[in-house]
Amino acid sequence: MPLHTDTHYEEELQRLQETILRMGGLSERQISRAIHSLVNRDSAEAQLVIDGDTDVDRLDVDIDELCLRLVALHQPAAGDLRFITTALKTTVDIERIGDQAVNICKRVLILNEEPTLKPYIDIPRMAEAAEQMVHNALDAMVRRDTALARQVIEADIFVDQLASQIFRELLAYMVEDPKTITRAAHVLFISRHLERIADHATNVAEMVIFMVDGKMVRHQKKNGGSASVLQ
Amino acid sequence: MPLHTDTHYEEELQRLQETILRMGGLSERQISRAIHSLVNRDSAEAQLVIDGDTDVDRLDVDIDELCLRLVALHQPAAGDLRFITTALKTTVDIERIGDQAVNICKRVLILNEEPTLKPYIDIPRMAEAAEQMVHNALDAMVRRDTALARQVIEADIFVDQLASQIFRELLAYMVEDPKTITRAAHVLFISRHLERIADHATNVAEMVIFMVDGKMVRHQKKNGGSASVLQ
Repeated sequence: MPLHTDTHYEEELQRLQETILRMGGLSERQISRAIHSLVNRDSAEAQLVIDGDTDVDRLDVDIDELCLRLVALHQPAAGDLRFITTALKTTVDIERIGDQAVNICKRVLILNEEPTLKPYIDIPRMAEAAEQMVHNALDAMVRRDTALARQVIEADIFVDQLASQIFRELLAYMVEDPKTITRAAHVLFISRHLERIADHATNVAEMVIFMVDGKMVRHQKKNGGSASVLQ
Repeated sequence: MPLHTDTHYEEELQRLQETILRMGGLSERQISRAIHSLVNRDSAEAQLVIDGDTDVDRLDVDIDELCLRLVALHQPAAGDLRFITTALKTTVDIERIGDQAVNICKRVLILNEEPTLKPYIDIPRMAEAAEQMVHNALDAMVRRDTALARQVIEADIFVDQLASQIFRELLAYMVEDPKTITRAAHVLFISRHLERIADHATNVAEMVIFMVDGKMVRHQKKNGGSASVLQ
């Protein structure tokens, strides 16, 4: 009986999947709380998100160690080995999603010291879409579901379009009233942080498709992050 | 004799290291050419950088496959396994460094259709520092040199300071003359792309220290990317 069918191995693989989903869930919550703190001008909540980032980081390290132990102690079959490899690369993206939530909150703290620039309508929509992308990308990964992964890649187009719209709108604010430039620049960067979160989710989805089908959709629709300025 | 001391294994490990350095070298060249195309307003060169990104991507896939083969066919000792794991995670960063060079060039193409905003002084300095960081981070990785890795992390502070300076200067341009806002926003994003390149190099350096010492310097000085706006 090959090592990779024993119970202990299956349990550890199961634990790896659960830890990936937990890390994803945490980073999703960090995004939604970051945007909540922006919309409600809640600096205390923003600070909680900043402090909570260590929890995301800790899971990153846990996952790396789970992966290493699986490979070192057992001899995973090709399919599982590909999953473990993808897990190792994926945590780089999930960890950075957490960082982007923190980056948003640092700007919220600054924005809260100034008068409100404008009501936020598109930013929460963008955040919701990005959060859903993160959720689906990690679901697709543990379920090895390429159809769901492709949905994530599609959704990135919507986020990029919102980002373009926000960019144009904020430039108009800046041109009209130079007093708004600093605040508008912070909001502009917040939309960029969200765009990067969607990019990270897209990267995960592309890795899932590569893991399952061996097809290189990675790097086809790339550098999407620039769309907001180029459109 | 354990498998991991056989000649074939050593050769493949050697090839992995060389491929990592080649990927790093390519991405360094992409950065320097991107900035050259900005300073010289050379759209043809910018387009070459954009097209050349597929070469960086191809090496990313090669490295993943080299790593998988090493793990699947041989049974790497703990130290080598840690190196291979780090390689898998590192290529995520190197590949994104290539993406950032492409992002810079897309903005160069747009900027070249407008009159020059200002002579570039700090941006090339920032690019040079970021490029050196990429070089040193990958050198540190294949040589398992934590002192060099720590130098990379230190250098990130200099890049962040330059980014802050550029940010303040560009905001002043925008406030003074709203006609410059769009162009200044593109230059602002170019400095952000460089800052992100330095962040990626820092991430690699942090992973090198973790690989060699098992010390978690990752996630200590994090979210550095925001420094430009917060200072």
